[in-house]
This record gives sequence, structure tokens and C-alpha cells, in this order.
Amino acid sequence: MKAAIFYAPHQPLQIEEIATPTPGPGEVLVKVAACGLCHTDLSYIDHGVPTFKKPPLVLGHEVSGLIAAVGAGAAWREGDRVLVPAVYGCGQCQMCRTGRENICERMVMFGNNVDGGYAEYMLAPAKDVVALPADLPLIEGAIIADAVTTPYHAVVNRGQVKPGDSVVVFGCGGVGINIVQIAAALGAHVVAVDIADEKLEMARKLGAQAVVNAKNVERADKEVRALTGGGAAIGFEAIGNPITQEQTFASVRNGGRFVMVGYSPKPMTLNSGRVMYREMELIGSLGCRAVDYPRVLALASSGKIKIAELVTARFPLDQINPALDHVRGGEGIRSVVMP
Amino acid sequence: MKAAIFYAPHQPLQIEEIATPTPGPGEVLVKVAACGLCHTDLSYIDHGVPTFKKPPLVLGHEVSGLIAAVGAGAAWREGDRVLVPAVYGCGQCQMCRTGRENICERMVMFGNNVDGGYAEYMLAPAKDVVALPADLPLIEGAIIADAVTTPYHAVVNRGQVKPGDSVVVFGCGGVGINIVQIAAALGAHVVAVDIADEKLEMARKLGAQAVVNAKNVERADKEVRALTGGGAAIGFEAIGNPITQEQTFASVRNGGRFVMVGYSPKPMTLNSGRVMYREMELIGSLGCRAVDYPRVLALASSGKIKIAELVTARFPLDQINPALDHVRGGEGIRSVVMP
Amino acid sequence: MKAAIFYAPHQPLQIEEIATPTPGPGEVLVKVAACGLCHTDLSYIDHGVPTFKKPPLVLGHEVSGLIAAVGAGAAWREGDRVLVPAVYGCGQCQMCRTGRENICERMVMFGNNVDGGYAEYMLAPAKDVVALPADLPLIEGAIIADAVTTPYHAVVNRGQVKPGDSVVVFGCGGVGINIVQIAAALGAHVVAVDIADEKLEMARKLGAQAVVNAKNVERADKEVRALTGGGAAIGFEAIGNPITQEQTFASVRNGGRFVMVGYSPKPMTLNSGRVMYREMELIGSLGCRAVDYPRVLALASSGKIKIAELVTARFPLDQINPALDHVRGGEGIRSVVMP
Amino acid sequence: MKAAIFYAPHQPLQIEEIATPTPGPGEVLVKVAACGLCHTDLSYIDHGVPTFKKPPLVLGHEVSGLIAAVGAGAAWREGDRVLVPAVYGCGQCQMCRTGRENICERMVMFGNNVDGGYAEYMLAPAKDVVALPADLPLIEGAIIADAVTTPYHAVVNRGQVKPGDSVVVFGCGGVGINIVQIAAALGAHVVAVDIADEKLEMARKLGAQAVVNAKNVERADKEVRALTGGGAAIGFEAIGNPITQEQTFASVRNGGRFVMVGYSPKPMTLNSGRVMYREMELIGSLGCRAVDYPRVLALASSGKIKIAELVTARFPLDQINPALDHVRGGEGIRSVVMP
Repeated sequence: MKAAIFYAPHQPLQIEEIATPTPGPGEVLVKVAACGLCHTDLSYIDHGVPTFKKPPLVLGHEVSGLIAAVGAGAAWREGDRVLVPAVYGCGQCQMCRTGRENICERMVMFGNNVDGGYAEYMLAPAKDVVALPADLPLIEGAIIADAVTTPYHAVVNRGQVKPGDSVVVFGCGGVGINIVQIAAALGAHVVAVDIADEKLEMARKLGAQAVVNAKNVERADKEVRALTGGGAAIGFEAIGNPITQEQTFASVRNGGRFVMVGYSPKPMTLNSGRVMYREMELIGSLGCRAVDYPRVLALASSGKIKIAELVTARFPLDQINPALDHVRGGEGIRSVVMP
Repeated sequence: MKAAIFYAPHQPLQIEEIATPTPGPGEVLVKVAACGLCHTDLSYIDHGVPTFKKPPLVLGHEVSGLIAAVGAGAAWREGDRVLVPAVYGCGQCQMCRTGRENICERMVMFGNNVDGGYAEYMLAPAKDVVALPADLPLIEGAIIADAVTTPYHAVVNRGQVKPGDSVVVFGCGGVGINIVQIAAALGAHVVAVDIADEKLEMARKLGAQAVVNAKNVERADKEVRALTGGGAAIGFEAIGNPITQEQTFASVRNGGRFVMVGYSPKPMTLNSGRVMYREMELIGSLGCRAVDYPRVLALASSGKIKIAELVTARFPLDQINPALDHVRGGEGIRSVVMP
Repeated sequence: MKAAIFYAPHQPLQIEEIATPTPGPGEVLVKVAACGLCHTDLSYIDHGVPTFKKPPLVLGHEVSGLIAAVGAGAAWREGDRVLVPAVYGCGQCQMCRTGRENICERMVMFGNNVDGGYAEYMLAPAKDVVALPADLPLIEGAIIADAVTTPYHAVVNRGQVKPGDSVVVFGCGGVGINIVQIAAALGAHVVAVDIADEKLEMARKLGAQAVVNAKNVERADKEVRALTGGGAAIGFEAIGNPITQEQTFASVRNGGRFVMVGYSPKPMTLNSGRVMYREMELIGSLGCRAVDYPRVLALASSGKIKIAELVTARFPLDQINPALDHVRGGEGIRSVVMP
Repeated sequence: MKAAIFYAPHQPLQIEEIATPTPGPGEVLVKVAACGLCHTDLSYIDHGVPTFKKPPLVLGHEVSGLIAAVGAGAAWREGDRVLVPAVYGCGQCQMCRTGRENICERMVMFGNNVDGGYAEYMLAPAKDVVALPADLPLIEGAIIADAVTTPYHAVVNRGQVKPGDSVVVFGCGGVGINIVQIAAALGAHVVAVDIADEKLEMARKLGAQAVVNAKNVERADKEVRALTGGGAAIGFEAIGNPITQEQTFASVRNGGRFVMVGYSPKPMTLNSGRVMYREMELIGSLGCRAVDYPRVLALASSGKIKIAELVTARFPLDQINPALDHVRGGEGIRSVVMP
């Protein structure tokens, strides 16, 4: 099969012919239909963040496709349309056994611990692939598998957003924009904050009732507090920047919740007196459980959230390097490669 | 009646004879049996933190006593033994109506917004005083009314400690020591951290399974992680210091909860990447709802938590200024004045 | 003012001129714009269920209107557009203080404990009326005040429906139809069950993905289990009939939740072995907290739920008796009187 | 190895020499130290309830012992002291992956689906055995593995008992008596109901504040309501009898929770109007997750619950049939066999 191989940082991926893998017991072979391109891949290629499996490695962790072969004991049939979640859990640690497999102590990530989806085929555990409803195109499936499920988990499980809650979202990129639309779909009153007008326009289109371009105001948090009558009940930061983290926290009302979805390697300065005296909550959010994927798919199937609009570029597999350039340039919302 | 009046910062309280107040509709007059002395009082007297009611003001917010007179519509009888919670809510704001009256938007604090308990009598809303069980002495009631209920709320409602949880408590003063004993009473495995051996000894006596004198180790968080097999499930900081806040956070395991009980006016430096990537939770905790007081009293009545041991000094009302000196000196655990 | 007075069961209401009441401290006078007609009124008139206030009594408990006069300390202005919830709580009992004012121990119901809305004006506590957003017509407000909020509480607070949950609703009358549309708005997969095709058609229009006419099938529960792949995660019974209660319970999957919204004076026969062995949950649901009304209004404002469609008849106040006949006949979904 | 074999109902078990099994990948071989005798075994032997594995079958599902051999990939060492939970889950179904492995869709029970503990050795999945703390004797471990963990799950996870809650327990047999002591250990105010004075005496000894002998009163529910000021917040029925189920429900206060722990094949008559109008909750409870076993062990280790007192008879393996007679006779609390 054809695959794009990562050999070392600061080099383009190599398109090569390698052996198609065979599914072992409890595994399936997936014929990749589409694989979303993600900034995480650039962290390995451009910034030298080490992968868990030593290269050579096939990157890519947002996959949709068809079941191509079925290992012993795997309850799937050839031709089934499936999503492959970005990660999977061990099923045995305390986290997995208390409903938190998204922070499994021995988590495995495609395109990092094992080969991923920038290839014609990939292996996955049968227990972790998810059936894609007939009314959802395979290409949309690919971007659901990370860029929409992570926001779902943040909004529903960690943020516990309910109808009528006021919500603020700092950052309307691939993750933030889906926080906006999922929270709005659930009946929240959403204020979106970004510095790019076109992203704010998209946020409005996907359900934000108000938007704030942080470039045009002195203090975004003040604007948000004014727009929400004293602060949002729940705030999401989807950028990973200490400054916007502080602003998001300052935008949340007393007794409210601040969900941290963006990853930042730098510390933030926390007004701890306010945390205590106003009973604030800061809540981390990472990924999404496979068991919640069908919930996200239901929102997409019923049209309550829009997926097609999010796929703004498509590339064949041998254009993977130009496709990564496209992501580097920050263009569009989500791009996919289609082997 | 006799009362200790606060006129201005940096002056002793004045013992004076003032008019005994009369309860209006929905109010009761309480003959004060004991009133706990609290560092909060010193913030007004020594540090000039402004009180909400302009002086002259009777301070004191940890009161037990007997109902002495009953206003119209108040369902109490003269002679009933009661606690007066430190604060009360409006009963009408969104917080009060969603079970969070401890962060009422229009909260009233005794000895701050209205006259408190350093007097022979005080007024209180009938709806907010709490019956003291016959088997609990009035003097113990006084310290329950803040120093034990605040820890209860932190452990049960905010920390959600369950049997078998590993818990770390940084700071074993008046609040921290009660977090230790309440968490231990609920079946948690408690590690107590302080820099005073006598406080750690008390922590052991009240149920801590392990103690760490932070003076004797290089890094207290490392010790805690070693003692808890990788970090406590839930950490409490009861000091209000950015350094111990960071240490507490570092002592909590992945996916765990850090409850901030101590108030600090200074910001803390937060490893926000860990919050996100490990799905940590930072949770503020303030005071305790009146509706939870009977739960604390039940723990005290059944002997599951010790109260008598916590009252380490008693003063008559006219010795209030030497009593405050005693608190200034950091001596003992809790002191009370008995008018 | 003009009012429709209830004197005794089995008699028409009397339209009379009575004194317009004056708001006391903490009260407001509401000029009634519309008042929903409810089967509960018929229980007093036709079935002799005793009212808490002895007649003469003004019935009616689904009111929208304008603030006409403001008592001392009430934070409203003349002309403000408001809803009046069907009931209000004491604000002081354990239920009110733990976020459950809808089951207040001393609950007061309009048109039952005190005069209600079949009149030109009515009194209400200032703390309990709710601002109606500018984009919602007053007449829609009237039916929100009970027929939509009760379903909201059932779906969100008691049923805890989340996106992707499979839900079954038995009974698509005034309450059931709104359970259907609120659950669907939240992203649930809803199966509606009734015996009237026009109600099922309305259910489909409001978001049900599948419908079952129980008249046309041998066992409705079997149909539901087939449509939901083994049973709905959450079932609602909005009729109040032991037979449909058992069917709803049988339609819920193992580990699922059965929310009882319809009132039945008759006992049901419960498969208790299944409750235990399959960890089922049976959950009662009554009314809705005033504090949740703005959440329902947000869903209506954003168009996620339809209200206008539900008002199928309008009557002037002096046609109250023919209007009640209309309700007796089971015609339409909701009717209102407009003084 | 020696084992007690079940061949068919209405026959004694046969003590035979059979091949000691060998652990496969992910399995361990446990040398049985003690195995609790349970009424469930009698359901197969005396009442012909079919077992999932066709006989011949080794019964017994409350096991403690030592690791005797370790299969590939199993993280245990020979000699480790362990408990074997009564059941284990598949780790892959929706229930297992949302923290509810105790109602796994493909649950396996020792001594039912696979061979159990009435033998010198038994196999178990490595992921499901639990380390027994050094301070707990192996013989106490045996009874923890079902008779104490089932009550734990009922009290903590399903009943959500908190300090100060009033609790009623109907039935003080092997399961009920441990509900009593665990609820009391958590600071609840417990009323125990039974018809045997010696069981009520034991209930008092283990923490019940009040007891009711239902034989001596006209209506046990009235007594309980009187003792709890209007009804218990949470009621547990641990018998499995429609009459005591109704009594337990009638003993719970408005807005309260009724946890069904006893299994009854007969339906109960439910006052459904009360469920709806008073927002009652009926909650089934089955078994306990392996992941909660260490929590139960922590309560036992710290002395908060008593285990030794519960083991009232010990038998060698070849006395299994007389031991079962002892259980048939309803003598004592828990008996164990020690191969």
C-alpha cells in the first residue's frame, strides 16, 4: 500500500510503497477514505516534539474509511463505514474503568504511538472504531474524529453546558469554532472571541449570538461581561495562550466554570483569591471518549451541527506535503487527505 | 447589654453598655453563649480591611446561644439552643435558588455587614439559625459555626471526597485540621502537611494516616506523591499562599481535584498545560450553607469528628482584647469569648 | 376589575367585577395579557378536587402580562413584560435551599392557594415573576409558564437528557409534545408514542425521529425497543396511566431512566426485579423552578423550540366557560384566555 | 486439585480431584484461601435456577487467596494476596466504558458462567483481581468480595448517602447489615428494620442509631417516619419482598430516594402518583465495580467498618454440603469454606 512516512523532523514526509498490515485478533484493517490534517502533526515535523513510536512512522489521527479486513473475534463486516478515534485506551486502568478512558494511563494515539492514517490502510482495535451513519459522508467523518469530538467532550462532559447558559469561547479555530456550534446547538447563548473577522463571521453562522474581535476592543473580558450581564456562566479557551486564558477566566461570572481546551506549555497567572472567594472552577478537557462519538454523530446527522462547511480543502495522499504547507499557513478551517 | 465595639482600625475594641436590640418580623434575639475568635476579625482591626457596615460595629461571627426573644412569624421558642451561621443569604438570587446560598449575590456576614456576636445578645434571621443537638455543649457549637462547617463544605460538596480516596491537606490550622478530620471520618486516606510538628501530631490524632513536615523535606509534593502512589486524588490548600497552592496542585494525581480553601490576595502560577492535558480540576470553596449545618452537627454528635479538643482557650467578654492578642500570637487552635 | 370566579364544583365560573388588589411589600400587580387553560382547572370544577383556598377563588395559573403596580422593595418597573410561574416556593425550607423549590414544603399555587389569572389583574411575589424577552409575544408567554417549563424540568433536570440519547415519550398532549420537542432540540433521538395520528404528526413536526401509534401495534414497548436498538436510554410518561407507565418502563433499556411526568391516582405494577437487576431508575418530575424559566425562554427565543404552534385557540375572558368546554373536549393543544 | 462439583439441582456437591487449570494470557491462577457461602448458590442447587455454564461446574463467587501462577502479560507476582470479585465485565460495552461495569452487557460470574471458588485453585482475569491490604486477614477478604462490596455500591454510588442523611434499611441479613454499617460509617443517621431481635442488636452494634422490630409494631413505615421526622432521606430494601419494598418506599420522605438492593421475582405495587408528585426516586443497585473494591478495603483497614464479626462459621472444603445446610438454616451472618 501507499503511505506517507515520517522519518525525522524538518524533512518532508516520504510517499512510499509499504506492506499492507494484517489485522490480528480483535483488530480490523481500515481502508482509509479521508484523514484530517492537524497541527499536532506539525509539532513532530516542524518543532521536533518526539513521537512515542520511533520513526519511521505513519502520521495522521483523524480517519474515516471502510472495514477492509477483520481479525479474529472482531464484530465488524467488510465494507462497514467507520470512524477511527484519534486515540484509544487500555480498558483496564482506573481511568478507563471509571468512564474516563480519554485520560487512560496507557493511552495509545494513532500517528504517534502506532501508525496512523496518512496511508491507504491502517490497523485499529475493533472495540474502538465507530460506525458512521449512512447519511454522513466519509469525508465529513474524518474531521469529526478529533476536531468535533474534542469540542463535544469539552462542552457536554466537562463544561456541562445546559440550555440558557451563557457561554464564551476564546479562539474560533478548528476546535473553538466547534465549541461555538455545539454549545449553540444545545441552546446556550454563545459569545465568540477571536482576532480574525472571517472566523467570527463563521462563528455567527454556526450559532454565536454575539462576537468580539479582541483586536478592536481594549479589554475583551470587559466586553464579554457587558454582553452577558456580568460574565458568562461557562468559558472555554481553545487557543492555549496564558493571556487569553486569563481573559477567559476574567470573562466568567462568579460561581462559574472555566474549561481549558487549548494546550499551553507556558504557565498562566491565576487570580487564586477569586477562585476561592467566588467558588470558581477551572476544568481541563482532553479529547473525547470513543463511547461519546455516536452522540456527536447524532448531532451531525440531525443537522444540529454543520460539518461539511468545516472541510475547506481536500488533497490526494501524494500531495501530503503541500497539504501540510496549507495547514502551516493557517488557511481554512480543516483540510483532509484522501488516499 | 454589654458589647465589644469596633470603632476604627488599630484600636482596641471598646467594652460598652448599649441597647439590647429587639427582633423584628422573621428575626430572633440570641443570648450569646460563646463566640469564636477568628483571624478575619484581625483583618479589620490590624490591617484596615473595611467592614461593609461602617463602624461602630460589633464584630464576631461564630456564635452559639439561646433564643431569648422571638419576632413575629419566627418558628422558635425561648430557650432553644442554637448556632448562628457566620453569614446568611438573601433567598432570592440565582445562587440562593440553585442551592448555592454560600455564594449569595447579596450575602450578609455577622460582624461585618451587621452586628455580630462579641456581645451579650445579637439579632439573627429566624430562617438561618440552626438547632444545636442536646448532646453538644454550647461552647463547642460556637466553633462549629465557621471553623468546622467551612471544612465540611470543602470536603463533601466541593471536594466530593469518597471512602478510599487519597487526600492531601496543606495547612493544619483551624480550617485545615478540620478538613483532615472530616475527610478521615468519611474513610479517606489523608496525608497532612504543615511546618509545625504539634499541628501534625494533632492531625494524626484526628485521623491523618501520614504526615509531612514541609520543613524537613526538600519538596513536600514529591513526598506526598510517594506516599499516595502517584498523587492524591483530591488536594486541599487551607493556607492561602501561592507557594503551597502550587505544591498542593503538584501533589494531586492526573485527573484529580484541587480544592482552594485558603484565601490569598496574591496570584498563583498555574501549570495550565497540566490542567488541560491531565484533565485536572481547580475548585474554589467558600463557607458553608446553613442547610448543611445539621450534617456537620450529626458528625459531631456521633463522635465521628472531635470538637472539644479544638477549643484551646476561653475568655470572658471583657477580656476580648487580650483574647485577640492570643489569636494574633497564633496560639492554640480555636479560642472563644463567653459573654 | 373583571374576574372569573369559582364558587363551587359543577357550576360555571361567574364573571364578576371585583376590587383590583394592591401589591404589598415584595409584591407586584400584573395586568394579565393571557392565561393558559389547563386540565387542572377542570379537576376542581368537574371532579370536585378541593382547592387549598376555599372558594370564592380566581382560577388560572399560566399567566403572562405587564407589571401594573410595584410594591415596596420590588425590583420591577411598570410596563415590564413578565411571566408568572404556576407556583412559588417559601424560600426557606430545606427543599428551597437545596435547589429544589419546585417541591417546596410550603408551595403556593396560583388559582389554588391564592387567586390566579382568570382576571384582569393578579398579585404575585416580585421574586418569582420572570422577565419575558422582547422577541417573545405575550400570548406565547402564557403557555410557557407551565406547559413548556414542566417538560423542560423533566427533560433537563430529572431526565438529564444529553445529545445522542435515545428517548421515548408516551403521550403527546400538552406536556408530552413539549417533552418531544425539548428532547429533540437537545440532540436526542426521540420516539413519540400516542393513539392520535394528528398528535404524532405534530410530534414529527417538532422533532420526533420516529412515531408509534399504539392503536396500530400489538405492543408499543416492543416497537420502541426495536426502533431504539434494545430500548430507549430515557423514557417519559406524560399521561398518568398505569398501563402506559408499565409500557414506558418496558421500553427503557437496561441501566436506563424512566421519568414519571403524568400524574396517576392509581398504583402501577412494577417489575421490581428488573429495577434491581438491571439498575433501572424511576424518577418523578413535578413542575419547574422559576430559576429555570429563563433557560426555557432562551430555547424559545432562539427558535430551537416552537411555541406559537402550540396555541390553538384564544378566548376573551367572558368566554371562559365555553373555553373550558373546549378543553373538556380535548380539542387542540393549548388554549388561552385573554382578559 | 480438590474441588466441589455441581452436577445437577437437588443433589449434594461432589468433592473430586480434577486438573488444576493453567492461566492463559492475561489470567492468573489463585490458590483459594477462603470462599464465602452465598444464598445464590442455593438458588442453583435447591431451586433449579439454571447456571450459564452447563454443569459440571464449580460454584462459589466470594474468594480470597494467593496468586499461584501468572499468565503472560499479567502484572502480578506469585504470593500476592488478592480478592477475586464475584463478577467481571467485558471492558468493551457501553456500560463498561461509562463506569458501569457492574451492569456489563456481557458480564461473567464466577461459579455461574465459569468455574468458581469451591476448589483449591481457580482462574481469574489479571485485570479483575484486587490486592488485599496486609492488615486484612484472607478470611475476611473472602466475605468482602460480595457481601460488603454490594452494600458499598448501594450506599455510596447508588444511594449517594452523605453525612447527616437519615437512612432506613429494611432487612439486616448479610447484605442489609453491611448497608447499615457502611451508611453509619459515612455519618448517616441509620434506622434498621428487621423481624429478628438478634439481627437488630447486631445492627445497633454496627452503628444503627435506632431499630424497629417490624413484628412488634402495626406499621413499620409509620415508626420510621416518626423516628426520622417525616421519613428517611434514603431507604434501602435488602430483602426482595414486595411488601417490605412498599414499606421502605413509604418510609422515605418527599423528594427522597429508594434504593432496591434485594431481588424479588414478584412485582411490587407502586404508588406512582407519589413518585411523580413528590419527585421520588427508585434506584436499582447490583453488585459493585472491581474499581471500588479498594475503597471498601480502605474502610475495613481503617476499622470504620467491622468485618471479622461477620464471619460466623468456617468449614473445610470437604464439609461444603453441611456448610450449605448451615446457610439453608439461615444461621449466622456469613460462612466461609477454606480449601
